[in-house]
Amino acid sequence: MSESGIAASIGIDIGASKANIGVLDANGVVLAKSKVDIRGFKTDSDATLEAICLETAKVVDGAGIAMDRIGFVGLGVPGTVDSASGRILYAPNLGWRDVGVEERFRRHFGRTAGLVQDARAAALAECLLGAGRGEPVVVCLTLGTGIGAGIILGGKIYNGGFNTSGEVGHMIVQQDGEPCGCGRSGCLEAYASGTAIVRAARRLGKWNGVPGMDKAETVFEKARAGDGDARGIVERAARYLGIGIVNIVNILSPNVVIISGGMCEQEDLLIRPVREYVAVNAYPLAVESGAFRIVRAALGEDAPMIGAALLYRGL
Amino acid sequence: MSESGIAASIGIDIGASKANIGVLDANGVVLAKSKVDIRGFKTDSDATLEAICLETAKVVDGAGIAMDRIGFVGLGVPGTVDSASGRILYAPNLGWRDVGVEERFRRHFGRTAGLVQDARAAALAECLLGAGRGEPVVVCLTLGTGIGAGIILGGKIYNGGFNTSGEVGHMIVQQDGEPCGCGRSGCLEAYASGTAIVRAARRLGKWNGVPGMDKAETVFEKARAGDGDARGIVERAARYLGIGIVNIVNILSPNVVIISGGMCEQEDLLIRPVREYVAVNAYPLAVESGAFRIVRAALGEDAPMIGAALLYRGL
Repeated sequence: MSESGIAASIGIDIGASKANIGVLDANGVVLAKSKVDIRGFKTDSDATLEAICLETAKVVDGAGIAMDRIGFVGLGVPGTVDSASGRILYAPNLGWRDVGVEERFRRHFGRTAGLVQDARAAALAECLLGAGRGEPVVVCLTLGTGIGAGIILGGKIYNGGFNTSGEVGHMIVQQDGEPCGCGRSGCLEAYASGTAIVRAARRLGKWNGVPGMDKAETVFEKARAGDGDARGIVERAARYLGIGIVNIVNILSPNVVIISGGMCEQEDLLIRPVREYVAVNAYPLAVESGAFRIVRAALGEDAPMIGAALLYRGL
Repeated sequence: MSESGIAASIGIDIGASKANIGVLDANGVVLAKSKVDIRGFKTDSDATLEAICLETAKVVDGAGIAMDRIGFVGLGVPGTVDSASGRILYAPNLGWRDVGVEERFRRHFGRTAGLVQDARAAALAECLLGAGRGEPVVVCLTLGTGIGAGIILGGKIYNGGFNTSGEVGHMIVQQDGEPCGCGRSGCLEAYASGTAIVRAARRLGKWNGVPGMDKAETVFEKARAGDGDARGIVERAARYLGIGIVNIVNILSPNVVIISGGMCEQEDLLIRPVREYVAVNAYPLAVESGAFRIVRAALGEDAPMIGAALLYRGL
């Protein structure tokens, strides 16, 4: 039994196409896991939560885990949550607005339940068990269709005054710059997200009809193969990501900045140039100690599920 | 006697031209204060600290305060401090490098001593007694020759992983932008500090030899009197300051952003436009609650001295 009195817990991460469900022991070891495809009904929050509850019971049962060992159920969601009321305020990719979850889970599972934004769950997991282990100030960026971040201070999730901490994708990195999906312009997300990279490639016109050009990965491949246009797009993304991280570093002075999400695999074309840009352009004392690091995430796509399961340690 | 067991404390704020010394009771009431002109010898850290110690003794004595009521001596400095070792690592405006202070003060006064960067001291004072009273997440920007910030979380100073939190003046707001005094380019400080405003005015050439044009205040006056060029300079400063605050808000989600320093008096030409820009351009949920505020500082130039004296409450 752990210090918290919780021997095992359930973590659920709702994404845009599937829910990732896991049962973890108190050390963060995944005892069992499963996925539910929610594409057919995800905009219906009742149906989605119902399907998740059913699958969770199956996972626990199938793995032969005694339900009385489980002390906590955590849910990570792609949106803004109000931890105090246990409600999802807004999850644009699911189309959910003001959905109560904690109370529902508490009733269903008969366990303490918790709710957390997925980027913060991933950051907590990386801080407790991954690339930010033991560091006092951890910022974990998720680069995907959008850009978000979780901030972990002293092992606890930092939510901010209005629960909107870590909205780094909407940091303004260019005055009157590229239009962003949020309706404003010049946001980091409009330059350095997967969506932005794909859009920049499409705008060039030269790859019309070429398969795979709806994925940022393909643009990175073309850049790696020597295509000058693709290289330009990728370099622009890396430059603005560098500016974004400089700004985070100069405000927060993190010990480690972790890059997660699919794009974190792009070590040569993205992570290394960003590291070099930050080393030269951030406030010197913040990055010169040798202890400051920009690193790739260690836990992969399970990070938000793991962080949700261990949320009781990060509150 | 307060909760901390400290009935009164001494706060000292070393600036570029003078040291501001005060004795405060546990409620933050200034019982006595004095200033020492340090211009003649400030680069000599020994002579400066000696003069400060002498003047402090006089203030305490002259006000008839029993030395045994004083439980703490706090020093605010314009530079980077290492709280753990009690040393000033670097204070460029004084020309000090690696100066031990805490130990010296402890020996001299026979009291617990503390060291804090002046912007953080001002932020703590504003959070405890001024414009950010009772707010969980407070960011206090100081606009002067440079731009710095203090971040106060739950009433405690946030130092960051490498003691460099709040270096917002070196946030990059324009790629390959104006050169900054730090040697890099595009920093917020290169657009929105008093120095940047004066420099932009000088560059125009039209005010050569006009008295007062070495002060940002005069540029604001000219803008207010209808000069289009001066207005352009001031509008540019306000726009970039708006971008800087949007970025702080999107990362940290503060309850209140406090603007301090001489330029915070420019309500119509600076503070109001910044407030309007942030309302439209920050992440909506961070600023739309009605509870989020951008306000002018309440404590004036004594803020760093007050914060230094109350540092024991903010550690």
